[in-house]
Amino acid sequence: MIYEVADFRVDPDKREAFEEAILRGVNTVISKAQGFIDCQVKRSIESPGRYLLVIRWETLENHTRDFRESPAFTEWRAIVGPFFVAPPAVEHFEVLG
Amino acid sequence: MIYEVADFRVDPDKREAFEEAILRGVNTVISKAQGFIDCQVKRSIESPGRYLLVIRWETLENHTRDFRESPAFTEWRAIVGPFFVAPPAVEHFEVLG
Repeated sequence: MIYEVADFRVDPDKREAFEEAILRGVNTVISKAQGFIDCQVKRSIESPGRYLLVIRWETLENHTRDFRESPAFTEWRAIVGPFFVAPPAVEHFEVLG
Repeated sequence: MIYEVADFRVDPDKREAFEEAILRGVNTVISKAQGFIDCQVKRSIESPGRYLLVIRWETLENHTRDFRESPAFTEWRAIVGPFFVAPPAVEHFEVLG
């Protein structure tokens, strides 16, 4: 089990539309992916337009291969990509302790 | 209820000692702070020496005022601070949806 942490920057003026879009993308695309466990969308208090999407996957490859190489990835990016004002920063994490 | 996300960079050669220190700091200091709910230490898979400390606090002020202005903050930084190779990046988040 691993965590994907994706750091998104969007235009703060489009915040409401982005929040609707990301929740829709999670519900209609991400949550149906192979190996998806659960996820959380976090909105920054200090930096308007900054969001963290934190997804638990059963394996690293469920994200990097199964999801990213599927048509679902294109579908997902079509929903959220238009809001990005910088390339997303994505890393994977394992939990300590 | 809010999340603090602290992004730490440490010397990868001191990874083992840092992991012991951060878990000890969480157990002996952070988890005893007013308003602390729970926390998680995440280790990056792609960037050795990068860690996210994610803490749930009852209120923003439990972190920014009650904890940071208490002697416990000095105690905590004495445990983990010596490992940092860059200033920690800390922001607070609320959960969407």
